Amino acid sequence: MGMTLGKIAELVGGQLSGDGEIVIEGVGSLTEAEKGEITFLASSRYRNQVSKTKASAIIIGEEVELPEIPSIRTKNPYLAFAQVMKVLVTPRKLPTGIDKTSILGQGVKLGKDVAIGAYVVVENGVVIGDRTVIFPGTYIGDKAMIGKDGLIYSNVTVREEVIIGDNVIIHPGAVIGSDGFGYATEKGKHHKIPQAGTVEIRNGVEIGANVTIDRATLGKTVIGEGTKIDNLVQIGHNVIIGKNCLIVSQVGISGSTVIGDNVILAGQAGLVGHITVGDNAIVGAQAGVTKSVPANTTVSGYPAREHRIAQRMNAQLFRLPKLFEQIKELKKEIEELKEKIK
Amino acid sequence: MGMTLGKIAELVGGQLSGDGEIVIEGVGSLTEAEKGEITFLASSRYRNQVSKTKASAIIIGEEVELPEIPSIRTKNPYLAFAQVMKVLVTPRKLPTGIDKTSILGQGVKLGKDVAIGAYVVVENGVVIGDRTVIFPGTYIGDKAMIGKDGLIYSNVTVREEVIIGDNVIIHPGAVIGSDGFGYATEKGKHHKIPQAGTVEIRNGVEIGANVTIDRATLGKTVIGEGTKIDNLVQIGHNVIIGKNCLIVSQVGISGSTVIGDNVILAGQAGLVGHITVGDNAIVGAQAGVTKSVPANTTVSGYPAREHRIAQRMNAQLFRLPKLFEQIKELKKEIEELKEKIK
Amino acid sequence: MGMTLGKIAELVGGQLSGDGEIVIEGVGSLTEAEKGEITFLASSRYRNQVSKTKASAIIIGEEVELPEIPSIRTKNPYLAFAQVMKVLVTPRKLPTGIDKTSILGQGVKLGKDVAIGAYVVVENGVVIGDRTVIFPGTYIGDKAMIGKDGLIYSNVTVREEVIIGDNVIIHPGAVIGSDGFGYATEKGKHHKIPQAGTVEIRNGVEIGANVTIDRATLGKTVIGEGTKIDNLVQIGHNVIIGKNCLIVSQVGISGSTVIGDNVILAGQAGLVGHITVGDNAIVGAQAGVTKSVPANTTVSGYPAREHRIAQRMNAQLFRLPKLFEQIKELKKEIEELKEKIK
Repeated sequence: MGMTLGKIAELVGGQLSGDGEIVIEGVGSLTEAEKGEITFLASSRYRNQVSKTKASAIIIGEEVELPEIPSIRTKNPYLAFAQVMKVLVTPRKLPTGIDKTSILGQGVKLGKDVAIGAYVVVENGVVIGDRTVIFPGTYIGDKAMIGKDGLIYSNVTVREEVIIGDNVIIHPGAVIGSDGFGYATEKGKHHKIPQAGTVEIRNGVEIGANVTIDRATLGKTVIGEGTKIDNLVQIGHNVIIGKNCLIVSQVGISGSTVIGDNVILAGQAGLVGHITVGDNAIVGAQAGVTKSVPANTTVSGYPAREHRIAQRMNAQLFRLPKLFEQIKELKKEIEELKEKIK
Repeated sequence: MGMTLGKIAELVGGQLSGDGEIVIEGVGSLTEAEKGEITFLASSRYRNQVSKTKASAIIIGEEVELPEIPSIRTKNPYLAFAQVMKVLVTPRKLPTGIDKTSILGQGVKLGKDVAIGAYVVVENGVVIGDRTVIFPGTYIGDKAMIGKDGLIYSNVTVREEVIIGDNVIIHPGAVIGSDGFGYATEKGKHHKIPQAGTVEIRNGVEIGANVTIDRATLGKTVIGEGTKIDNLVQIGHNVIIGKNCLIVSQVGISGSTVIGDNVILAGQAGLVGHITVGDNAIVGAQAGVTKSVPANTTVSGYPAREHRIAQRMNAQLFRLPKLFEQIKELKKEIEELKEKIK
Repeated sequence: MGMTLGKIAELVGGQLSGDGEIVIEGVGSLTEAEKGEITFLASSRYRNQVSKTKASAIIIGEEVELPEIPSIRTKNPYLAFAQVMKVLVTPRKLPTGIDKTSILGQGVKLGKDVAIGAYVVVENGVVIGDRTVIFPGTYIGDKAMIGKDGLIYSNVTVREEVIIGDNVIIHPGAVIGSDGFGYATEKGKHHKIPQAGTVEIRNGVEIGANVTIDRATLGKTVIGEGTKIDNLVQIGHNVIIGKNCLIVSQVGISGSTVIGDNVILAGQAGLVGHITVGDNAIVGAQAGVTKSVPANTTVSGYPAREHRIAQRMNAQLFRLPKLFEQIKELKKEIEELKEKIK
């Protein structure tokens, strides 16, 4: 299943330099690609490694100077590389069929070509769309609805009545629809608020390994279309997340917070409850967001502030020792002046 | 299963305003409740949304002015709402019976009306109390003891000899009794310290999804009565937690730390090992606690300090740019004075 | 299986004080050990508790003054205690045999005395080395290779083609080989980059409960020999970790970061992608590492700086209120000088 470099250039809509007739048989990283493979330059900071690669060709960005080997230049080399991988890497064979050890409850409705692995438990009234694949050991609660072309890995829990759209990927160990953390405290005791709502995961969402998404107290916790969630993220009850967000590993979002479209929450950021984050906002890694973030804003630090301000503060922190010295000097000078005036 | 508003007012011990004869059929959030349902005002900051609700009645706090629709006023509207939900929301039907695919070891003792789901493995010598329900795919290790009226969700691991009290809820994917992180390092190599102790979870505790609680090296890691633990929390070996604490998502507590009663640890806070946190203390979100916290104290920031001090420091950080300017000015003035004196 | 104190002193190579003929039957913590047991002093800060222990003997460090009870003095009391535990604590009986409910795919190769628990699924082409034990509910994907003397707890997921060395321990709920978080974004949409690489876990590694380790986009994510990983840690795609590192709970390491040997990452630390951390470096708890860390360096804070500098900055932060006052005073004095000069 090789392909000429010329054909690859056409496929990704890039600009070919060098011999378009060479045949590319596979893909590899800059340092590990072998002869006959194509690689790509993820970041210009690795430019000096290009001369050492054994790859036969390379995909580069527009700003990068032409390398010594045949290349394809393109606006988005990462995207181009993804397209090439889809063609040249043999796709993993997914399981097929309904394993005889899986347990399907009453009234379960399965679409065409659904695959259900060993020891999967699908409770009563669950609906699963065409071509969705469920790996071994996963649990799907009562009346959950799962769309088409989904991929649910092993040891996942989808609790009752959770709604999952089409083309959703859920990685191992994720828990969708656990109870929200809600208690009414009286005389020091915490009384559980029933968590009677659910979770809705819209089309094209990807959910990382061991992620936890709580069901709403009432209504729904919502993950918007095309949003991607990394491993070990926590999403509280009644959170609403917009479309095409990127939520990086170990982020925590507290209850009832509303997040717009195309928002990026970097790793380990934490957001308090009951705030809003506007469209296209970026929250820096480890930021502690204590109030709403306007659209198109980048915030960082704890408590999170506009990134430029946070950076300036950080720089000034560095200059604090100097500040203390300067004040000492000023004091001294004033004392000297006092002496002189006497 | 409707109920008149008057009866609901009685039930929650609240003060009725408006028509007590209207029948309430269900509950809903402020924005999603329908006609015939009751809602509640969780926070006065949502007061302006009350005029838009379609709910037929509302539960409010004592400080809130009377709304346009019939209402019940009460000290703790959240608690009142929880009470109403318990009456008006049809409770989820829990599984019953011992699934024929579950595996019970030798000498397992089950109380009355225990329910054990598909593919659950209960090892030798385990004791499970009356009415406890275990969902599919969960693993209970040798000689673990689980109390009455418990609810253990799917894909949970309770390791050997762990002791769990009555009325305990464990959400999916939680791991109770994993080895503590203990090594003796010699010449750069880390030699595992056997983790021969266990974990005791007392009555009324709730443990979130994908939480990890390590067993003690010797003795017990203890979670006190009525303490509630949110998702993805890490509790190290030999940690002792008191009664009625709230431990919010992604908190980490290092080994041998002792926490008092009614303590609140907000989201993503981290505590070093071998310290104590006194009763009623509050640790702010993302705080990094590096030394013991006295009772009745609120701390925040990194390293965690008394909250008022941390806040003042944060405010002053904001004024740093001004400080730098002021010092420049002072310098200038001193130079001018020097000139004049000459 | 008792042992005289004298024999124990020999075993650990320590210096005996007191009656070497007393027989020690077990081990216990300082506060919980009973008569006939040996305990140890983990930290000199617990020295004042020694007089209250019921233990019959104690292992202490070289700098600690001799206690009232018979003792063994040694350089590394923690290591000595681990050695004693291995002798005096009855080791947990591990499961044996291949459970009849486990499912082994085509071409699976099992070594001698492998134990596979109930409802374990081992896919086609998997190889498992001698004496490795797998607990119930765990999933091993296609062609994964697992070495000798391994211990894989319940509800673990090892995805396809992952390579695991000898003497590796994996705690419950861990996920090895999940897809890396890689997308090519075009016009606001995130296109998944196929994650075609794998993970290699080398000999002697321990992986905590609910840890997530992503497979590489191409090539391998690598965990070096003897490295120990605590619970709920996230390791991104293409990360390379050296030998004998300690990675404490809830740490997050972003994609393609390279970590040397004997590195310590303390709890909740976060590292951005594409950086390097040199041998023997220490990253403080909750530190946010935004750029490479040289070997033999300790960093802390956000953004992480050399620890001594970060500490000084923290101390100066504390003195900020005083600074503001001093500046006020200087201003006043300058005004007074101005007046006088007039």
